[in-house]
Amino acid sequence: MDIVTRHPSNPLIRPSDVKPSTEGYQVLGSFNPAAVEFDGDIILLLRVAESCVPEDGYVSVPYYRIDDSGSFADVLRVREDDPDLVLKDTRGIFYRGADYLSTLSHIRLARSHDGVQFRVEEKPFLFPTLESEAFGVEDARISHIGDEYWITYTGVSRDGFCTMLALTRDFVHVEKKGIIFSPMNKDVAIFERQCGGSWYCFHRPNNDGFGRPSIWIARSHDLIHWGEHSCIIRPQNNRHESLKIGGGAPPVLTDEGWLAIYHGKGDNQRYSLNTLLLDPEHPEQVIGRGKAPLLEPEEPYETDGFFGNVVFTNGMIIREVNGGKEAWIYYGASDETSCLAVADMDNLVRHARGRI
Amino acid sequence: MDIVTRHPSNPLIRPSDVKPSTEGYQVLGSFNPAAVEFDGDIILLLRVAESCVPEDGYVSVPYYRIDDSGSFADVLRVREDDPDLVLKDTRGIFYRGADYLSTLSHIRLARSHDGVQFRVEEKPFLFPTLESEAFGVEDARISHIGDEYWITYTGVSRDGFCTMLALTRDFVHVEKKGIIFSPMNKDVAIFERQCGGSWYCFHRPNNDGFGRPSIWIARSHDLIHWGEHSCIIRPQNNRHESLKIGGGAPPVLTDEGWLAIYHGKGDNQRYSLNTLLLDPEHPEQVIGRGKAPLLEPEEPYETDGFFGNVVFTNGMIIREVNGGKEAWIYYGASDETSCLAVADMDNLVRHARGRI
Repeated sequence: MDIVTRHPSNPLIRPSDVKPSTEGYQVLGSFNPAAVEFDGDIILLLRVAESCVPEDGYVSVPYYRIDDSGSFADVLRVREDDPDLVLKDTRGIFYRGADYLSTLSHIRLARSHDGVQFRVEEKPFLFPTLESEAFGVEDARISHIGDEYWITYTGVSRDGFCTMLALTRDFVHVEKKGIIFSPMNKDVAIFERQCGGSWYCFHRPNNDGFGRPSIWIARSHDLIHWGEHSCIIRPQNNRHESLKIGGGAPPVLTDEGWLAIYHGKGDNQRYSLNTLLLDPEHPEQVIGRGKAPLLEPEEPYETDGFFGNVVFTNGMIIREVNGGKEAWIYYGASDETSCLAVADMDNLVRHARGRI
Repeated sequence: MDIVTRHPSNPLIRPSDVKPSTEGYQVLGSFNPAAVEFDGDIILLLRVAESCVPEDGYVSVPYYRIDDSGSFADVLRVREDDPDLVLKDTRGIFYRGADYLSTLSHIRLARSHDGVQFRVEEKPFLFPTLESEAFGVEDARISHIGDEYWITYTGVSRDGFCTMLALTRDFVHVEKKGIIFSPMNKDVAIFERQCGGSWYCFHRPNNDGFGRPSIWIARSHDLIHWGEHSCIIRPQNNRHESLKIGGGAPPVLTDEGWLAIYHGKGDNQRYSLNTLLLDPEHPEQVIGRGKAPLLEPEEPYETDGFFGNVVFTNGMIIREVNGGKEAWIYYGASDETSCLAVADMDNLVRHARGRI
């Protein structure tokens, strides 16, 4: 029995649906969406990856000029035979004392009434303005707390990747709150309710080379300062999680505990999704974990693309349907498109219990 | 002009001065001491590194059994020809599903009236009791705040290294407070006074492979939860700091700002010390940095030993002398011994200003 059903309109959002942010840029990916219900709509915050439109005889890379006067997207255009140009690998160049990446991401807002047909805004919702974001902002997650929407996202810079926090109430104005997890740390999702007087979040320290990157929990009293860290699950010794794991969207509180969907990176760098169930009062205690992946790359848009064989989720909403509840799992496919899969909540919990 | 003067009794503490913690263990290093004045004495918290006494035909490694009933140092003794034994490199083995390190550290207390002649206690002051400490506890730093002494130290485990916090008031009883910086993070030192209503600390995220490990600052309201991270200095492009840098002891507030001594790891994995001056009200603002190292491995006990060409400091006390102030810089030499160098505080500040 398939627990999740892919939407027949997948992929819901393709790069061709997204206008480049800047003249001279082209969109390569519109993927890994955060998801939330807001004002009767479903809002996604897409990661939009852009490179420069190629031009014969030149190497061009996107970058942000960040200084006291502001932040501006620009193109660095260098003749192929410029002796100062150092091609590092396909991912970047070194030119006159500075590193540049071939692709650079920002966060774009998309809106829908039905959760399937989305209008993508023309301008970025979040883009690099801070030193810790100079190489891009990626993979947002939204936590709805009171009338506030707290957004965690990855900041990439010469210091590596870290996790940033931002706050919005209206998805028009957004206030950056700076770094909440210093490098190397990503996959941060804040729980939407307190447990025992503390806020909780998932985070994923990068301990590659020493251990295998695992899912951790931290606690906070103000969402800004985090501590009381503990590792809750490590990768399993199987082909789905051989390299690393990381948390997905903020977990959902069910009658049986916090239900979360996480990703595993396994053999051949293939990403799949699995379920996790945490104690409702003490989320650092794991009470269930799926026996087999919930979703694996199978459809052509999941197996082929910018980076094939990737399904990755960081957005989920819960909808009431015929007296039951459905999880609408938004996910990125192949680091290129945004897709939707739907699952009955009771089945997700059973999966996390290891029963199906 | 030499700004620092090595004490003629160096090394003050050698491995032979330290009793092994456990039968079958031998002490290889007693180094990298935290330092504080307490009750008229000077207290050092040494990192004591131990291995097992070698025995022909066997490979023996130290380890801690940590379970619900407690924590016990033990010896894993395996015949050299045991088919289950996997020798990884000189640093460890793999045996029947688990990793073991060849050496394992704990924290030992040493006490002195004059700051030179130390009595080393027979039993560990801090030793592994938590999952995050299973491979040892290392490199303590002490911050004296009110009548409390807050100790930061590195916990090593299969998850990598992270920074732990502990509290003592009497250096007899000590209470562990858990992980304050998740992997991979070390070199954490808490400032002994608040600035602008916040506690500050140095920390050193490991971003190796993406950037070069650098010195960061974070803020806290309770010493347990940390945030508002910013990178304050990165390695300089010279032979002294080509690989990484990291903070030392808690900085000292002077009339001109917070004076800190940090270490650089440079060409050929050689460690040296340098100075740093931070704004007194806004320590994330760097106002000075030494032009050349303050201390480099030169004496035989610094150039040769368990890991030669290392000077590393995580302990410093300030003494009033003839109307002036001296910094007593305790430091580890060659990952083997504990040493002392003395400097006039005004000269240290001038060094950090780049003037000498």
